[in-house]
Amino acid sequence: MGPGKADLLEAIAATGSISAAAREMGMSYRRAWQLVETMNQCFLMPLVETAKGGAGGGGAYITPLGEDVLHRYRFMEQKAAQSIATEMDAFSATLSATEPRSSSI
Amino acid sequence: MGPGKADLLEAIAATGSISAAAREMGMSYRRAWQLVETMNQCFLMPLVETAKGGAGGGGAYITPLGEDVLHRYRFMEQKAAQSIATEMDAFSATLSATEPRSSSI
Repeated sequence: MGPGKADLLEAIAATGSISAAAREMGMSYRRAWQLVETMNQCFLMPLVETAKGGAGGGGAYITPLGEDVLHRYRFMEQKAAQSIATEMDAFSATLSATEPRSSSI
Repeated sequence: MGPGKADLLEAIAATGSISAAAREMGMSYRRAWQLVETMNQCFLMPLVETAKGGAGGGGAYITPLGEDVLHRYRFMEQKAAQSIATEMDAFSATLSATEPRSSSI
C-alpha cells in the first residue's frame, strides 16, 4: 500500500467504478486495473470486487477488508505524520517557496 | 523528498557521479538528472553540485545542505516507522505471503 493505492481505493468507494475512479485521478483505466489487481493479490482476500455488468457495465466496490485496510492505512499515515511534525516544520524551512508538487519519489 | 530521491542522494554520495548513481539504481541518466534538478530547485540551496570535467567528465557531490537533508529525511523516516510499528505488524498479518515488492504507489 501507498498513497496512490489508498487514493484509488477511496475513489472507487466514492464512484462505484474503476473507470470513473481512474478518470477522477487522471490515470489510465489499464493502470487503475493493474493497481487493483496488485492490491487484490497482495492481501489474503480482495480489497475490490467487480460486478459483471449488463448494458451499462458492472460497477466496482471495496470489500469490508478493503474498508478496513483503507482505515488502517489512513490512521497510520496520520500517526506517522504526527510523530514527525516538529521535524517536518524544521525541514520545510529549508525548502524554497517555489517547491513543485511532491512526486513521491 | 521521498524514498527514491533519498536513495539517489546516497548513491551520488557513494559513487561521486550522477551517471554511476543512476546505473546503480537501474535508472536512466536523464531521469536521475531530472530528480537532481528538482531537488536543487526545491531547496533554498542545491543539494548536489557537479564539477565540470576534463577528459573523463566531472563528478558530482552532495553539498553540506544535501547531507543535512539526507540525515533529517532518514531520521524522520525511521521515527515515523517506529511510531506505527505496532499497527504495521497487525496490518502485515492481512497481507498474503506472495506480496510483490512495494511500488510506493
